[in-house]
Amino acid sequence: MLIVMHHSATAAQIDRVEKSVRAMGLRPEPIPGSLRTAIGVLGNQGYVDDSTIRDLPGVREVIHVSKPYKLVSRDFHPQATIVKVGAVDIGDNCPPVIMAGPCSIENEEQMRAAAVGVKAAGAHLLRGGAFKPRTGPHSFQGLGIEGLKLLRQAGDSVGMPVITEVMRIEQLDAVCANADMLQIGARNMQNFDLLKEVGKLRHPVLLKRGMSATIEEFLAAAEYIVAEGNDQVVLCERGIRTFERATRNTLDLSVATLVRELSHLPIIVDPSHATGVRSLVPVMSKAALVAGAHGLMIEVHPDPATALCDGAQSLTIEGFTELMEQLRSLSAVL
Amino acid sequence: MLIVMHHSATAAQIDRVEKSVRAMGLRPEPIPGSLRTAIGVLGNQGYVDDSTIRDLPGVREVIHVSKPYKLVSRDFHPQATIVKVGAVDIGDNCPPVIMAGPCSIENEEQMRAAAVGVKAAGAHLLRGGAFKPRTGPHSFQGLGIEGLKLLRQAGDSVGMPVITEVMRIEQLDAVCANADMLQIGARNMQNFDLLKEVGKLRHPVLLKRGMSATIEEFLAAAEYIVAEGNDQVVLCERGIRTFERATRNTLDLSVATLVRELSHLPIIVDPSHATGVRSLVPVMSKAALVAGAHGLMIEVHPDPATALCDGAQSLTIEGFTELMEQLRSLSAVL
Amino acid sequence: MLIVMHHSATAAQIDRVEKSVRAMGLRPEPIPGSLRTAIGVLGNQGYVDDSTIRDLPGVREVIHVSKPYKLVSRDFHPQATIVKVGAVDIGDNCPPVIMAGPCSIENEEQMRAAAVGVKAAGAHLLRGGAFKPRTGPHSFQGLGIEGLKLLRQAGDSVGMPVITEVMRIEQLDAVCANADMLQIGARNMQNFDLLKEVGKLRHPVLLKRGMSATIEEFLAAAEYIVAEGNDQVVLCERGIRTFERATRNTLDLSVATLVRELSHLPIIVDPSHATGVRSLVPVMSKAALVAGAHGLMIEVHPDPATALCDGAQSLTIEGFTELMEQLRSLSAVL
Amino acid sequence: MLIVMHHSATAAQIDRVEKSVRAMGLRPEPIPGSLRTAIGVLGNQGYVDDSTIRDLPGVREVIHVSKPYKLVSRDFHPQATIVKVGAVDIGDNCPPVIMAGPCSIENEEQMRAAAVGVKAAGAHLLRGGAFKPRTGPHSFQGLGIEGLKLLRQAGDSVGMPVITEVMRIEQLDAVCANADMLQIGARNMQNFDLLKEVGKLRHPVLLKRGMSATIEEFLAAAEYIVAEGNDQVVLCERGIRTFERATRNTLDLSVATLVRELSHLPIIVDPSHATGVRSLVPVMSKAALVAGAHGLMIEVHPDPATALCDGAQSLTIEGFTELMEQLRSLSAVL
Repeated sequence: MLIVMHHSATAAQIDRVEKSVRAMGLRPEPIPGSLRTAIGVLGNQGYVDDSTIRDLPGVREVIHVSKPYKLVSRDFHPQATIVKVGAVDIGDNCPPVIMAGPCSIENEEQMRAAAVGVKAAGAHLLRGGAFKPRTGPHSFQGLGIEGLKLLRQAGDSVGMPVITEVMRIEQLDAVCANADMLQIGARNMQNFDLLKEVGKLRHPVLLKRGMSATIEEFLAAAEYIVAEGNDQVVLCERGIRTFERATRNTLDLSVATLVRELSHLPIIVDPSHATGVRSLVPVMSKAALVAGAHGLMIEVHPDPATALCDGAQSLTIEGFTELMEQLRSLSAVL
Repeated sequence: MLIVMHHSATAAQIDRVEKSVRAMGLRPEPIPGSLRTAIGVLGNQGYVDDSTIRDLPGVREVIHVSKPYKLVSRDFHPQATIVKVGAVDIGDNCPPVIMAGPCSIENEEQMRAAAVGVKAAGAHLLRGGAFKPRTGPHSFQGLGIEGLKLLRQAGDSVGMPVITEVMRIEQLDAVCANADMLQIGARNMQNFDLLKEVGKLRHPVLLKRGMSATIEEFLAAAEYIVAEGNDQVVLCERGIRTFERATRNTLDLSVATLVRELSHLPIIVDPSHATGVRSLVPVMSKAALVAGAHGLMIEVHPDPATALCDGAQSLTIEGFTELMEQLRSLSAVL
Repeated sequence: MLIVMHHSATAAQIDRVEKSVRAMGLRPEPIPGSLRTAIGVLGNQGYVDDSTIRDLPGVREVIHVSKPYKLVSRDFHPQATIVKVGAVDIGDNCPPVIMAGPCSIENEEQMRAAAVGVKAAGAHLLRGGAFKPRTGPHSFQGLGIEGLKLLRQAGDSVGMPVITEVMRIEQLDAVCANADMLQIGARNMQNFDLLKEVGKLRHPVLLKRGMSATIEEFLAAAEYIVAEGNDQVVLCERGIRTFERATRNTLDLSVATLVRELSHLPIIVDPSHATGVRSLVPVMSKAALVAGAHGLMIEVHPDPATALCDGAQSLTIEGFTELMEQLRSLSAVL
Repeated sequence: MLIVMHHSATAAQIDRVEKSVRAMGLRPEPIPGSLRTAIGVLGNQGYVDDSTIRDLPGVREVIHVSKPYKLVSRDFHPQATIVKVGAVDIGDNCPPVIMAGPCSIENEEQMRAAAVGVKAAGAHLLRGGAFKPRTGPHSFQGLGIEGLKLLRQAGDSVGMPVITEVMRIEQLDAVCANADMLQIGARNMQNFDLLKEVGKLRHPVLLKRGMSATIEEFLAAAEYIVAEGNDQVVLCERGIRTFERATRNTLDLSVATLVRELSHLPIIVDPSHATGVRSLVPVMSKAALVAGAHGLMIEVHPDPATALCDGAQSLTIEGFTELMEQLRSLSAVL
C-alpha cells in the first residue's frame, strides 16, 4: 500500500499517518519526493483495508499494491490447475472443452435431441438450465427439479457429463445429485454466501464473470470458492455491460489471455450470451480459442424458433456441427 | 412490439413473420414505409419474448414497447405507494426519511453510541450490517446473528425501527425477527430467488439498485417482489459503475426524479456508497432531497477512523448532526 | 511513481529497473516488502511517461502518483480563479451564473424573443449555437457566421454578454469578434490543437467535459489551455456516457464538488444535455447549485415544439422564469 | 419512427400528435393496442429529428427505426467497397492488410529501422505519428512537419505507402503531400469539420472509432466523409472505454463482424491501443483476423524501451516478424 500525502501536508500529519500504520501492525516507510511525500506500507501479507488511513488529514490518495486475491493468483501459484469433470480435463495443455446445449431445459424430447446432436458434433459437456434468472417475473422461470432430471437423463443417454446453473443454496443438493459441474451465473458472481457453500463442496464449478465485474473482482470471487477448499473452478467470460447495446453485451476477449497470466485457473468463453446474436457466435467462438480460452460454452437448440429462452442467440444442431468442424481445423493449427 | 424488416426483405419473409406473430396468439399490423416495412404487434398484455421472431429471415430489429414491469409502473398505478416502517411513513408527501448508522455492526458500545447519536440528530431508522458482502474473502464478513441482536437492542434502547441487509434466504427468519425493514443489497438486486421469498413476506423492503442495472431492470427487480404480494418496497439509488473511478461509483441523481415519474414506489438515495468519499456525502445528501428523493441512507460511525468497514465514507456523529440541521433548513424551503 | 515488481522478480531484474529509472534522471528507492519489492521513483517534477519501465522483465505494475496536470490543480494553486465575462464574475464566493438560450440560433426573431425572455428572468449570459456538432450529416448544422451576428445583436439589444461554441480553429476570429466567451464542446474536449489555440487568446473559455472523459483527463484538457497562458477557463459538467440510456447522459453531479477540491477553476453544470429530458432540468438545476456548481447552462427556447435542435430538452421562457425564481429562493438559503 | 403514447393518453392528445406528424410532411399511422396506442410515422426518407414530438402531452417514448446513416449502410448499398492505397486493396475478399510502425516518428534512424523491419516481415503500410494527441500538455507532442518528411522518406526507401494521423484542418495539405492514407484518431471521430474537409479530398482515410462511440455513431461519422464525396473510408476498431481498466481499453471484437453486416466499408482492428499491453497484441491480432477484420494496425518499434510514446504496447521487430508468420499460417486456414 502506498499513501500519497498532499503537497502541503505538514510534518505532524505525516507523523500521524505513520502512527496509524504502526497501529495496524505494519511498517511505514516514508518516501520524501520533490513535490510531496509518499509513505510505503510494508509487512502486510495481503490486501489491507484502507478505511482508517484514507481520511486522515493530509492524505490525498491511498494506492493498493496487493490484490484482494492470492490463492487463485499465478504470481503465488505458478502451476496451472486442471479441472476434472468426469473424464474431461480443462486447463493448460488440454484440448479445448466444448459445453453445449439449450439455454433452458424445456422437455424430454428437446433435451434428447439436443444431447444426441451436440454429442455427435463432438461436444464434451451437455448444458441446460433448470433454474432460470430472468429480468422480469413474467418470463418463463425454468422447470426446476423436474428439469434437472431431464438433463441428467439426456446426458446419461449419450454418455456426457452435464452442467447446470444453481441459483440458491437450497438447490445445491439437488443440483449436485444431478449434475457433474455447477454453474454460478453472472448475476450471482458476488452472491458470496453461495460461493462459500460451493467452496465447501468437491464438485467442479463454472464461475461466470458478473456483467460489471472487473477482472480483479472476478478473481476475488473465485478466491471465495478456493478459500473454502474447492480449487476445481473454471472461470467464464460472458461479456460485460458497456454503453454499446448493438450486441447484448461486449465480449471482453482480452480477458481470456490476461486471466491466463494472472491466474492458474482455466478460463472459457460464452460467445452466446456475450453477443446475443446468432450470426456472431461462430466467429467469436473461433476468436476465443485463438485468444487462449480453454473452452467454450455455446447455446444450441434443436429448434431455436420455438425456444422458450434466448432462441435468437442459439445455434441449430446443423450450425453447431459445422462450427465444431471449423474449430477442429482451427485447433489443428493453433 | 415493433418488428423492423430489412430494406430488401421479400414479401415471403414479411409473410412468414406475420404468421409467427399469429402463432404467438398476437396480431400483426404491417406498416409499409417508403424505405422498408415494419410490423406492429398488437394484443399483448405485457412484455413479449422476441426470441422466436428476432432471427427470422429479413428481420433487422425488434423493438420493445412494453416494459418487463407493470405492477410497479406509475402508468398503470398512478397512486403513490406509502411504505410504513413502524410509525415511519415513506413516500410522496411524507417528510424525507433518514436512515443512518454504521456500515457494520461491530460491538454493543459502537451500536449504542451510533443509535444515541443519530437519534438525537433526528434520524428515523437505525441501520447496521450484520451480514457483509465483501469483494474478497479475507475482509471482515460481519458479526452475523450476534450482530442482529446488537442492532435490535440498540434500536430498542432509543425507540427507533432498524434496517439491515439480508444476503441469503436462510437468514430471512432471523432478520425478520430482529429488523423492521429488510435491505436487499446491490449485488443481490437480481438474486431472483431471494426477491421472490421476500415478496412472500409482509416486511417492508429496501431494494438497492444493482451497480450496472438499468432503471428498467431495477423496476423489473422490484416487480419480482410486488408480484408475490408484497408492495412495501422502497427503491434505493446507490451509484452505478462507470468508467470514472475518482468516486467509488457515479451517483445517478436523475434517477430519483425519473423513478418518481415511472413508478409509484418511493425512492431514496445512499450518498455514502455512491461517492465513497466523506466530504461529498453532505452535499450529495442535500442534492438528493432537492432531486426529489423520499429519503436518505447515510453511513454514520462514532469513530470512523477505527471502523471495520467503509470508515472513509462514514460521517462522524458531529458531522451527521450538522448535516441534519442543514437538511431541515433545506426541507423547509422545498 | 511506484513500480511494483512480481513476487518472483530476481535481484537482477530489480537492478535493471533501478538503472532505467536513473537513466531517466530520476532516483529509485527500493521498498522491500514481505511479499514483493516495490520501487519508489523520486525527483520528478510532474507526470512521468512509464513506457520505458512498464515492460521491463519482472515489472508487474506501474502506479502513477503525479497527475497529468499541475497548473489547474488546487494542490499547487490554492487560490480560486475568478473568470470574468464582461461584468460577470464566475467562481468561488460569486453568485451562481446562469447562461441560457436556445441550442441553435435559428433566426432573428427567435433570438430576440429568447434574449428578452431570459434577461427578464434574470439570466447573466445569452447562449446560442451557430456551429452545431450533429451525430449525422443529414441534420441541421447551424447558421454559421450569420448566426454569430444574430447572437451578438440579440445580446447587445438586451445588454447581455454572449457565449457560443467554436468547433474549428479557423472560426476563432469570427467567434472572438462576436462572442464574449468561447465554448469548447464535449466532442472537442481532446481536440488538443483547438485547446492550444484557445490558450493563446485572452478570451474566457467554457470547456465541456468529454462524454467519456475522466476527471483527470478533463483537468488535463484544461491544463492545455492554461499552459498556453489563458487561465480564464470555466469547466462544465454535462453528463457522461454510461450503460443507462433512459436519460441522454448520466449527470455526474459529484464532480462539481470534487472539482472544487481538486482545482481552482470554476465549474458549472449543464442539466439540459446531461438529462435530455425537459422535466428533469429544473430539479437537476437546483441539485447542481446545492452540489456546489458555480453556475448553470440551460437551454431555453421561445417555442420548443418548433426548435430545430434539442427541443425536447429546452425549457420555455415561462418554465425558465419559474425556475429562476426557485433558484433565487434556493440561493438565499445556501 | 414509432411514437408510443402513455397508457392513459386521451384521444385529443393522440390527435395532436398526429397533427404534428403531418406538419412535418409525414404520415401518421395509429396502431391501437390492448394496453396503449402507438403511432407509426411513415414517409420519411431517413432519420427524423424527434424534438418536436417527444415532448407533446401524452407521449411516453419515441423510437427510431431509421438510422442516422444511409450511404455507408450495407442495407442500401450491398456491394462491398474496396479501398485502394497505392497498390494495396482493402476490403472483402482481399488479403488482410497489415499497417505497422512506431506510435511516434522520433528520428530518421528509428524510422528507417522500423521501415526496413516491418517491410521485411511482410507489412503493407508503414505507420508513424507526426502530430500526437496526448492527454496532458507536458508529454511529447510529436515532430510535426519534420516528422511527416521522415515518414515519407522511410516509406519511399522501402517502397511502402504510408499512413499518418491528421489532427487539424490546416495540416491537411502537408499530410496529403506526404502520406498515402490519412488517419482520423479516436478523439477526432466526431470532429465533424475535419470529417467534412477530409470528405472533400480523394485521399483514402482511416477513421478510428471514438472511445465511447456506439457503432451507430461510428457509422454516422463515416457518413460525414462519404456524404462529401469520398467513399475511400476504412473503419478501425481500437477499443472502447469501459469500467475495466486492467487493459487500456476494451477491445470490442464483435464489432468487426457486425460492421461487416451493417456496412459495405472495410474494417480493421488496432490491438495495440485496444489492449495497451504488449503480451496481448499477438493473440488479439490473430483473434481479430478470425473475427473478420480486413486488416490490422500494429505498433512496432525498433527499441520499445526507448520509445517516446506507447513503448509498452509496441512490438519489437522480432516480435512483429514472428507474429506475421503466425498470421500467414492462420490466413491460410481461414
